[in-house]
Amino acid sequence: MSIVLDPTAQDLLFREARTANTFTDEPVSDEQVQAIYDLVKFGPTAFNQNPLRVVLVRSAEARERLVSHMSEGNQSKTGTAPLVAILAADNEFHEELPSLLPHFPQAKDVFFAERPVREEAASLNGALQAAYFIVGVRAAGLAAGPMTGFDSAGVQKEFLDDDHTPLMVVNIGKPGEDAAFPRSPRLAYHDVVTSV
Amino acid sequence: MSIVLDPTAQDLLFREARTANTFTDEPVSDEQVQAIYDLVKFGPTAFNQNPLRVVLVRSAEARERLVSHMSEGNQSKTGTAPLVAILAADNEFHEELPSLLPHFPQAKDVFFAERPVREEAASLNGALQAAYFIVGVRAAGLAAGPMTGFDSAGVQKEFLDDDHTPLMVVNIGKPGEDAAFPRSPRLAYHDVVTSV
Repeated sequence: MSIVLDPTAQDLLFREARTANTFTDEPVSDEQVQAIYDLVKFGPTAFNQNPLRVVLVRSAEARERLVSHMSEGNQSKTGTAPLVAILAADNEFHEELPSLLPHFPQAKDVFFAERPVREEAASLNGALQAAYFIVGVRAAGLAAGPMTGFDSAGVQKEFLDDDHTPLMVVNIGKPGEDAAFPRSPRLAYHDVVTSV
Repeated sequence: MSIVLDPTAQDLLFREARTANTFTDEPVSDEQVQAIYDLVKFGPTAFNQNPLRVVLVRSAEARERLVSHMSEGNQSKTGTAPLVAILAADNEFHEELPSLLPHFPQAKDVFFAERPVREEAASLNGALQAAYFIVGVRAAGLAAGPMTGFDSAGVQKEFLDDDHTPLMVVNIGKPGEDAAFPRSPRLAYHDVVTSV
């Protein structure tokens, strides 16, 4: 057995977990989101950058504004999910580096003085943290519905600022009826992994 | 309890898992890598893009070439890890979409006809899959040492082609002596998550 992770955990996080398109009415509490964050915050990022930022869209007014920026096919599920989160990358993450990287506080100036370098680092490492977050949602017994189909500039303008780039919007909740499409195929191992 | 994932699994994947900088001599087999892939391939990507590609650097000659492109601080660990993998994003992933997205095969032409759109999608979704891969390495009871400190153009030229963009290099193996630095702090929940 190459995988030591318990089979039940494998199913919960990967094999049986599915992207949900419908949800029950059961709310998702701030305590649940905090438990998710406090688990997945330990996932690694380069130089411990921690560039991920999360905006929970809690009010009806904010939800309405967000839905108007979603692609048509994403509007109804975003309108009805128990919780919707905007995941973004903080392009000014370097301001926190002296406290996040106490053994090398000068990394802020040595490596991340230039904004384009920071943007590239934030988008890669923010995406890693977004994936950890999706895994964490599943670890909480919830389903995630990550979406990239939205007007990014509009979401940034409405909910973020020039220093924060949207990565994705994630619907979160207990899966409802017919929540998932039939699973689509994945690439075979030998189409993905080669050796030299 | 907001997290339903077993505490042992939480420790294995996040709480006790650490980025390793030294490794034992124990080899990592292709069977282990395949088991990792066959677990984490189920992690979600937009439109089921599956843009991640993995090059296992197996030969001594290839290892030597790779080490020469790593940042100085990454050279010795990359030279001695039991297995080193180059993770890359396939910017021509759309060629596989008709088989990966059988219910919407026209997505290839409707959404991904333009190369810049594909590059942006591949870098985001490839990064998500890289994070799932790191989680999978840990699920296999191994430690990952992901690194972005290398000459990206050099690695691309030596090991990939114009259609594949390096995302990171990952050392893989059983952690050795003093494998991890003391864990650096993470941002607090309220510094990362806000509500509107």
